[in-house]
Amino acid sequence: MNNYKVIVQYEGTKYNGWQKQGNTDNTIQSKLEGVLSKMVGSDIEVFGSGRTDAGTHAYGQVANFHINTDKTPEQILDYMNQYLPQDIAIISIENVPERFHSRLNAKSKKYLYRVWNSSIPNVFERRLVCAYTNSLDLEAMKKATNYLIGEHDFKSFCSNKKFKKSTVRTIYAIHITKTAHEIQFLFHGNGFLYNMVRILMGTLIEVGEGKRKPEDMKNILAACNRDCAGITMPAQGLALMEVEY
Amino acid sequence: MNNYKVIVQYEGTKYNGWQKQGNTDNTIQSKLEGVLSKMVGSDIEVFGSGRTDAGTHAYGQVANFHINTDKTPEQILDYMNQYLPQDIAIISIENVPERFHSRLNAKSKKYLYRVWNSSIPNVFERRLVCAYTNSLDLEAMKKATNYLIGEHDFKSFCSNKKFKKSTVRTIYAIHITKTAHEIQFLFHGNGFLYNMVRILMGTLIEVGEGKRKPEDMKNILAACNRDCAGITMPAQGLALMEVEY
Repeated sequence: MNNYKVIVQYEGTKYNGWQKQGNTDNTIQSKLEGVLSKMVGSDIEVFGSGRTDAGTHAYGQVANFHINTDKTPEQILDYMNQYLPQDIAIISIENVPERFHSRLNAKSKKYLYRVWNSSIPNVFERRLVCAYTNSLDLEAMKKATNYLIGEHDFKSFCSNKKFKKSTVRTIYAIHITKTAHEIQFLFHGNGFLYNMVRILMGTLIEVGEGKRKPEDMKNILAACNRDCAGITMPAQGLALMEVEY
Repeated sequence: MNNYKVIVQYEGTKYNGWQKQGNTDNTIQSKLEGVLSKMVGSDIEVFGSGRTDAGTHAYGQVANFHINTDKTPEQILDYMNQYLPQDIAIISIENVPERFHSRLNAKSKKYLYRVWNSSIPNVFERRLVCAYTNSLDLEAMKKATNYLIGEHDFKSFCSNKKFKKSTVRTIYAIHITKTAHEIQFLFHGNGFLYNMVRILMGTLIEVGEGKRKPEDMKNILAACNRDCAGITMPAQGLALMEVEY
């Protein structure tokens, strides 16, 4: 048995997220498992670095799987890309030590949220951005992110109210960059809770609109209550960019 | 009556090209006419700088139309973008002199053809590129373009065999640029015949594969016979970038 680590790209528009929900469901994980199981002739399980929501994209999702095959890594990659749908691709493959696990060994992740902030629609990337036409105060949003950097209990930014494990995470950096029509938010942290980036985004947008003050972030964090934070922004603006090990 | 010039972007994937073929057809022109006719309450005709094929995209198609309205240009633009499908957008609008005609006054055009030349599929721009995995000799293709620059009878590169008018056109430049996974071909000329860029591309690809020599271009042009040129490349890699006046 060899353990293979792959980097997976997908446009999440059509899918019910990463994690499989049955044998014939419409998720990224089950598409990958389907192709690999067909290739080797037995059921194969694929482990992802983490779930992505329905509609969320990935430029650098990482997954691993154990299989027994005569194919070279390049042949596995070609086989997978041949049979995967056009909106999912394997961009690299690597034979890794048996104990490597894409989720358990992940040290940090980068997520990008793209806000298309223009009255002119984005035709060519419309599935990859969240359109938001109101003007946003960039400086206020940048100030607000200062309260989020570092180790905090992000319970207020987690949709799963029944989540039993620790909701403490560390955010290393949030970079906000603006071009003529777009604002990009890059989040780098050691891990992200269910819907965390999308709720952080909803709260930052409310700061950008002037509905909340940057310093409100302190109280929202302290409350440890989802109801104190902003809306959950749509999944389509979100993409998992990189998983570091 | 005012005459408005608009720049139109569209992802052509779903459409039967620019030119209308009836009242309720699936073309860019009829979508624009439908929205404008609804806005002013009477039938409006939209003139495009030229037809684009089914599946061809545009970043800078130019069109004009004469309407009588109290709306400001900005209000017309907002109205159109509100009612147009998500894969068509008006990115600018300008009140122009009454005699301006987007096709008759066009001086030159730029078309881009994108070849995704990699064994790794392009997930996010798959609708905007033509995937072609064979390796291509860039220098041979560049040499071949030298025979195409200038004023020539491009009859061999025109699909419409019944075309009665002059098939003489001038190509000012063909720029070929290569990145890690992609080769882009930018065509700049005073006008392009039906399928001309796609047939030029098919012929250049055959040169890049070694099936034809760069100097064969001379004979292909001289033959004035469509059957002497290469295949017609798919529309999805093609985009109208700019129309100059």
